[in-house]
Amino acid sequence: MTIPYFFAFDGIDGVGKSTQIDRLADLLRQQGRDVLVVRDPGSTEIGLRLREILLGGEMQMHRRTEAMLFMASRCEMIESVLRPALKAGKTVISDRFLLANVVYQSTCDRGGVAPVTPEELWKLGRLACGNLNPDLTLLLDMPVETAFARLGAETDRMESRGPEYLDRVRSAFLEQLPHTGGKGVVISAEGSVDEVASRIADAVLSNGE
Amino acid sequence: MTIPYFFAFDGIDGVGKSTQIDRLADLLRQQGRDVLVVRDPGSTEIGLRLREILLGGEMQMHRRTEAMLFMASRCEMIESVLRPALKAGKTVISDRFLLANVVYQSTCDRGGVAPVTPEELWKLGRLACGNLNPDLTLLLDMPVETAFARLGAETDRMESRGPEYLDRVRSAFLEQLPHTGGKGVVISAEGSVDEVASRIADAVLSNGE
Repeated sequence: MTIPYFFAFDGIDGVGKSTQIDRLADLLRQQGRDVLVVRDPGSTEIGLRLREILLGGEMQMHRRTEAMLFMASRCEMIESVLRPALKAGKTVISDRFLLANVVYQSTCDRGGVAPVTPEELWKLGRLACGNLNPDLTLLLDMPVETAFARLGAETDRMESRGPEYLDRVRSAFLEQLPHTGGKGVVISAEGSVDEVASRIADAVLSNGE
Repeated sequence: MTIPYFFAFDGIDGVGKSTQIDRLADLLRQQGRDVLVVRDPGSTEIGLRLREILLGGEMQMHRRTEAMLFMASRCEMIESVLRPALKAGKTVISDRFLLANVVYQSTCDRGGVAPVTPEELWKLGRLACGNLNPDLTLLLDMPVETAFARLGAETDRMESRGPEYLDRVRSAFLEQLPHTGGKGVVISAEGSVDEVASRIADAVLSNGE
């Protein structure tokens, strides 16, 4: 049994990623790992500045410009936080990774503007990430209605588009999961926190067997 | 004789691009062309915001992050200004283009941080530009000492690094010129404004002959 060193959690908003990331971090610490949880774009100063621009919503920009700003933010997080942690022997759990950029930037069309293709985004993303891929991506999946009900009244640009939009995002996550460059597993996020945590533990501890 | 529709001017700071761009615009207007001059990143709102982040100098960021922000700014200028102008039949003169991004991002190391390679930057840039290349790139070239003397007391991050730096940039421009995807011509920027303008006119009017 080989437990990976670089995990990514992904999935539509409302599936309970944060809770499950904390649970996996606890589990891995029990295994003796030094665990770091990273979130993009909030983890760096430049990420915060870009987030203001991206989520402020007051500024019109081309879809590819937007994609590049998200990728720039991810690049900074990787080089300033994530890669140094991995080099220092830490186990890293990333709350979202490149898969999320590809999914969100290729699905959310608006105002008749064509989205950027997944192929373009993977290429751009691999350049941004310096070809660093998660060893294991855990895609938390549940019916959109359930996730949407959990979301409540989120107001930022990414989360305020309704169930039809989330449904397209859910499909895109499932379609793009095989392209992360590492291993990808779909985890049902339905049921209790303990049930989902147990599924994740099984997937993590059995990885590489 | 075919006069191109998309020109880029490039070269180290101090070679007199702005003056020569205005002269070429006048010449092309005399030929009946509807001419638009674009400058990056000042030409868009998002470009201005990114410029604040990039040239403010108060924020540390990875070289690839910086490159991606410059490219994002260029992408926005292309999609919001340059490509629509070309589609409308206008002749566009761009004050710097992707070549400049490749040159500056691959040459200016600082604090022991490895620069991004020209190969990575061309790949990133072609994605950012949606594969739009200038028909003709005019590289204004002169000895660094002359250009440096012309610069005077510029204070932003790109222009305050001394003659050794400018010399590396000059060489990089000459090396990278063949990779623009369009035709590239080196123009001597020494001599009077009229002499340089005359060389440019010859290169432009003879293009495609």
